[in-house]
Amino acid sequence: MSDPAEAERLLGDGQERRKVRRDLCAVCFMAALIVGAVIGLAAVWASLANVETLPKRNVILMISDGFGPTSQTFARTYNQHVNKLKYNYVSPLDEILVGSSRTRSSSSLVTDSAAGATAFACALKSYNGAIGVNSKKVPCGTVLESAKYLGLTTGLVVTSRITHATPASFSAHVVNRDMEADIAAQQIGDNPLGRQVDLMFGGGRCYFLPNHTEGSCRIDQRDLVKESNKQGYKHFATRKEFDDLEPGKDKLPLLGLFTLDHMSYEIDRDPAQEPSLKEMSEKALKFLDSATAKSDKGFFLMIEGSRIDMAAHSNDPATHVHDILAYHETIELVKKYVDEHPDTVMISVSDHETGGISLARQVSSDYPEYLWLPEILTRVKNSSFILSQGLVQYWNVDRENFIKNSIINYGLGIDNVKDYEINWLKEERDQLEYEYYLANMTSIRAQIGWTTHGHTAVDVNLYAYGKDIEYLRGNHENIDIGDYIVDYLNLDLDTITSKLNNSNFHQASDSTHFHADEHHPHTHI
Amino acid sequence: MSDPAEAERLLGDGQERRKVRRDLCAVCFMAALIVGAVIGLAAVWASLANVETLPKRNVILMISDGFGPTSQTFARTYNQHVNKLKYNYVSPLDEILVGSSRTRSSSSLVTDSAAGATAFACALKSYNGAIGVNSKKVPCGTVLESAKYLGLTTGLVVTSRITHATPASFSAHVVNRDMEADIAAQQIGDNPLGRQVDLMFGGGRCYFLPNHTEGSCRIDQRDLVKESNKQGYKHFATRKEFDDLEPGKDKLPLLGLFTLDHMSYEIDRDPAQEPSLKEMSEKALKFLDSATAKSDKGFFLMIEGSRIDMAAHSNDPATHVHDILAYHETIELVKKYVDEHPDTVMISVSDHETGGISLARQVSSDYPEYLWLPEILTRVKNSSFILSQGLVQYWNVDRENFIKNSIINYGLGIDNVKDYEINWLKEERDQLEYEYYLANMTSIRAQIGWTTHGHTAVDVNLYAYGKDIEYLRGNHENIDIGDYIVDYLNLDLDTITSKLNNSNFHQASDSTHFHADEHHPHTHI
Repeated sequence: MSDPAEAERLLGDGQERRKVRRDLCAVCFMAALIVGAVIGLAAVWASLANVETLPKRNVILMISDGFGPTSQTFARTYNQHVNKLKYNYVSPLDEILVGSSRTRSSSSLVTDSAAGATAFACALKSYNGAIGVNSKKVPCGTVLESAKYLGLTTGLVVTSRITHATPASFSAHVVNRDMEADIAAQQIGDNPLGRQVDLMFGGGRCYFLPNHTEGSCRIDQRDLVKESNKQGYKHFATRKEFDDLEPGKDKLPLLGLFTLDHMSYEIDRDPAQEPSLKEMSEKALKFLDSATAKSDKGFFLMIEGSRIDMAAHSNDPATHVHDILAYHETIELVKKYVDEHPDTVMISVSDHETGGISLARQVSSDYPEYLWLPEILTRVKNSSFILSQGLVQYWNVDRENFIKNSIINYGLGIDNVKDYEINWLKEERDQLEYEYYLANMTSIRAQIGWTTHGHTAVDVNLYAYGKDIEYLRGNHENIDIGDYIVDYLNLDLDTITSKLNNSNFHQASDSTHFHADEHHPHTHI
Repeated sequence: MSDPAEAERLLGDGQERRKVRRDLCAVCFMAALIVGAVIGLAAVWASLANVETLPKRNVILMISDGFGPTSQTFARTYNQHVNKLKYNYVSPLDEILVGSSRTRSSSSLVTDSAAGATAFACALKSYNGAIGVNSKKVPCGTVLESAKYLGLTTGLVVTSRITHATPASFSAHVVNRDMEADIAAQQIGDNPLGRQVDLMFGGGRCYFLPNHTEGSCRIDQRDLVKESNKQGYKHFATRKEFDDLEPGKDKLPLLGLFTLDHMSYEIDRDPAQEPSLKEMSEKALKFLDSATAKSDKGFFLMIEGSRIDMAAHSNDPATHVHDILAYHETIELVKKYVDEHPDTVMISVSDHETGGISLARQVSSDYPEYLWLPEILTRVKNSSFILSQGLVQYWNVDRENFIKNSIINYGLGIDNVKDYEINWLKEERDQLEYEYYLANMTSIRAQIGWTTHGHTAVDVNLYAYGKDIEYLRGNHENIDIGDYIVDYLNLDLDTITSKLNNSNFHQASDSTHFHADEHHPHTHI
């Protein structure tokens, strides 16, 4: 946002909103005192006691990164097509639509995932790139930290690097999302609050390994795996270790990092190597449920379908839809948990839309037909990301046959390739160029359109399940989701913000060198 | 939809759904009889009496044609920008979001406006092009006709030709939307039910004028203005006549057709010549309110922001947003009416999305910035449709200056035109090509993307205001909107369907010659 007046309006209003809330609290407090004087001290005591005995409650915040309204129609219809379901079959999300979320950040009409997640985590608008800091780059207390402070158990389950913008915004405070080495350190407890996250499942082990170790993304010698052990974490990295974990046998805190970089796209995932989002969520719920079973405090768990976004950045529709369907399965699991645990609320929301996807694309200057073709996408075997790796690596003399057979016919399931497509792919190019080209080959045949490899500004769908979700009905600012969690769990973000800033943490975060993500040119934001 | 099995699933299920409803009715009826036997005939009598005395109720169905989720974010943000409103300013629609509507038709995953409106009107899925007929091309009773049959007053207010797909689907029965000459005749009462619509405001007079009359679209000699007078209609065509209309002085039925073709886009509209959608709606409400004041029956009014869709077909963002803002103003008016008349429900829904619009567009191969630029659109003076007429007409020697000054600098408000743009526009081309090109010049500068000049499949937002709207919360099939109106007004579509088909009307509709829309090459569907 280049207009400083507009930025001022945004920020000024953000502060104002918080102030109104405080003023309302003050009014409530005065009103309570007067009522107390009238009905006697005993009643006041009872009232105060009531505040203390807020029932045990859990919040499961599910974030579908980069998932706009079209992506939901897309996944539902694709599923209907593949499984020959009736036109009025609906997905687990459709059953619980309550409204929508407005996504702009303090710095732009189009948010990134960092400002988007910080809006949920700190209940305030911040700038694109901000991880748990406000628009003035000052650390802000998050719902996860406040929950932990009040005795709740906390968890993060993602399919990206655990240090990526969304999980980072709940568990770290840095001025730029690319400072993932610092984010990793903060996430395991190197911050003024100490260890905040009781369970982390996802990818991104590379930021926990010291420089010169194979696969490390760090430029320093810190060994965060070792440091995490000192903080009490049991660290593990394999499917077998994951499967063996049992609440009776193993204890929180747990740090499961299954891959160096992001976990695989669902369409590419080898189940023998990596658990699914649903499996990780199921295990997380088992542990959080068990850890809080004998407590009067519940838990806060954030689950992210992280790579829905990344497939949309690549404009790769088959990969996008498979990650959405994996998210749907996780929603179904969590809804069942809510059914069995009525003091749990699940919220499902996106930070923003990605790609400007449309279910119809004009493929010539003729007036377009009214259709799109899910069948095309059922034939795709791998992400364009994986297939493009093959194109970068394979330079044998039979490259053309490799392209025709392995990449296009088998990989994309395309049997009507054009000569100009083969010729384009034969040339030496960057992997990202190949990836976009392959993704477009399926998109154009399925008549699915995209307008950008970045994000867009459309309001995203808001879903909720459980009791006490009436507030969430209708159209909301993204920061309202944070406010709702604060109210539902009776949190106090200001206390955490004070604690974070009562040290030299702010300065430290601000002056930390910028660590560009050199090892991951393919990183999407 | 090329897959017959899929079509069968769709249709089979549609029938099944209706059957389930009938079965449920049967069950209810049996249950009522048993209860009646137990508590005595007196109670049965009271119960039956109660059915007869259903309270007086009104339904105002507002249809925003071609208006998807992105268009709502677009209009809200544009309005915030232009009027320097805070980021959390919301539009009159945002305040009443209740869910979303799934739009596919029986013949395609991407509906047209005919099947889309027939879904609302007849509460069933039909094929693209169907006007008030089911998937087997058999006329189906509409909510407007059933309301009229039960003694309610009825109205249609649109900015398209009144014979266009949306209003036609409530008031006519033809197998193809392009049979507008037949639609016009049916609309004024030439159908088995007789006159059904008490008030019609909109454009499209050309289909009411006999062939060889200036501006006629008919290929026969029927003078429907004269015929409408015989049916009792007062016909008028000017702003002055419109302004002079008063419920005390003038009576229903009214037929106000202000233009030969569609009414003007809001951005082009001359208020001295044509009333706005809001003004037409205000006048319609006055007349319907007055006509039903002393009755125990209310009214059914359909109001359409018709040309939101057409601007999106042209991918013309400034024109699109101005028609949406005019629709917002109308929503505000109608909400006020509902506030003052608590037995009124307003529903606002779209038939489908158009254009695949995105609020972000990648304008080079560089990684895109996260933004879009509303400011660009504030400078546009006219629709690309109107500006393209200038390009077709002006061939004086100073054409280049005309293009630079009148079209680009003044009309589009663009001050950074490129030479290749001027050169492209200097060449002789079809008007539609010019129109698309001009629209793209603003779209690309505002970084707004489009994927098609046709429709897309995304679920559209559902809004409702009034009491008794709980059923509408959440995600619905479009036909559920029709079902809701049936239930709210206690309608009976089957009776109307029988009446329509107890004549040779069906055959007549089916055999009517196809009247292609030759006079309107710019017609969008």
